[in-house]
Amino acid sequence: MDISTVNSLCYEDFVDTFGNVVERGPLMAAAVWSHRPFSNLSELEAHISDFIDKLPESGKEGILRCLPDLAGRDLQRGTLSRESQDEQSQAGDTGMASLSPAETTRMHQLNADYKKRFGFPFVICAKMSDKAGILRQLAERSGNDLSQERECAISEVKKICCLRLRNLVLSETRNKQ
Amino acid sequence: MDISTVNSLCYEDFVDTFGNVVERGPLMAAAVWSHRPFSNLSELEAHISDFIDKLPESGKEGILRCLPDLAGRDLQRGTLSRESQDEQSQAGDTGMASLSPAETTRMHQLNADYKKRFGFPFVICAKMSDKAGILRQLAERSGNDLSQERECAISEVKKICCLRLRNLVLSETRNKQ
Repeated sequence: MDISTVNSLCYEDFVDTFGNVVERGPLMAAAVWSHRPFSNLSELEAHISDFIDKLPESGKEGILRCLPDLAGRDLQRGTLSRESQDEQSQAGDTGMASLSPAETTRMHQLNADYKKRFGFPFVICAKMSDKAGILRQLAERSGNDLSQERECAISEVKKICCLRLRNLVLSETRNKQ
Repeated sequence: MDISTVNSLCYEDFVDTFGNVVERGPLMAAAVWSHRPFSNLSELEAHISDFIDKLPESGKEGILRCLPDLAGRDLQRGTLSRESQDEQSQAGDTGMASLSPAETTRMHQLNADYKKRFGFPFVICAKMSDKAGILRQLAERSGNDLSQERECAISEVKKICCLRLRNLVLSETRNKQ
């Protein structure tokens, strides 16, 4: 799909297509449809980012609470969204599905501590990291204060969104090739 | 479920429970969890209403675009959410599923005109109306300007939200009986 096709979509098709670039967040896609036509993919991405930035802190936390735990119950139950499933299974060379029992236990404990501290799940763009990096980040970021960590997690949501968008829309560079 | 049970829910269970009081809007539930404990159901409802009010106009339109058409393709395909299915089938004494072929054609035409004009679907709290009233409102509200109609439609979203919440949580009055 190229950007002119994106601009021609009715809102139903637009929300069907982009409704999960922010996990369980069709509102974000449905809201930015108001700003079409987009001159390129970056502009669409910028509108989503801008919408998120303007949400109150509770809304940013809300976005985070709609994401699944890394290596959590949804992975185990097979109830992850298709996008999350791909991302968690392709984290670096290894993936969350390949954690050893000891690593899984450690991840669950760190996740539980993190959620107790912040009230939302640990979010990281798993595709841009690997198993060791994710565990290290989880331990490190648990030391942040709430405000720092909310911003850090939201910046990860935007990285995830960026990759999901690029999976759906041909970027200008690729279009020109 | 009473309000003390609501207040004891972890965010995952809270979002599972209230994630569709605003249609396809788990973000709303996930955001207001930040404000718990709630002293009563009205306070929970007020936080959701307040969150919606503070969204930019594109966000309010986004909420509306996440709702299905009345008597539209989701009703025909059986892909309505459980809540919308109940509401559309119980509109007044008759329900959207019982429209005559001529009424269905009229509804589709009015819906199409409305969406072309406003860029979001016609939203009405179907349980508080009946077939004739819905058709009349659809024709009348199509004459509003965008700003008026956005506010009008959002007030209907809040009525739907109120009824869905009351289906899930015992109100204080009912608690005391």
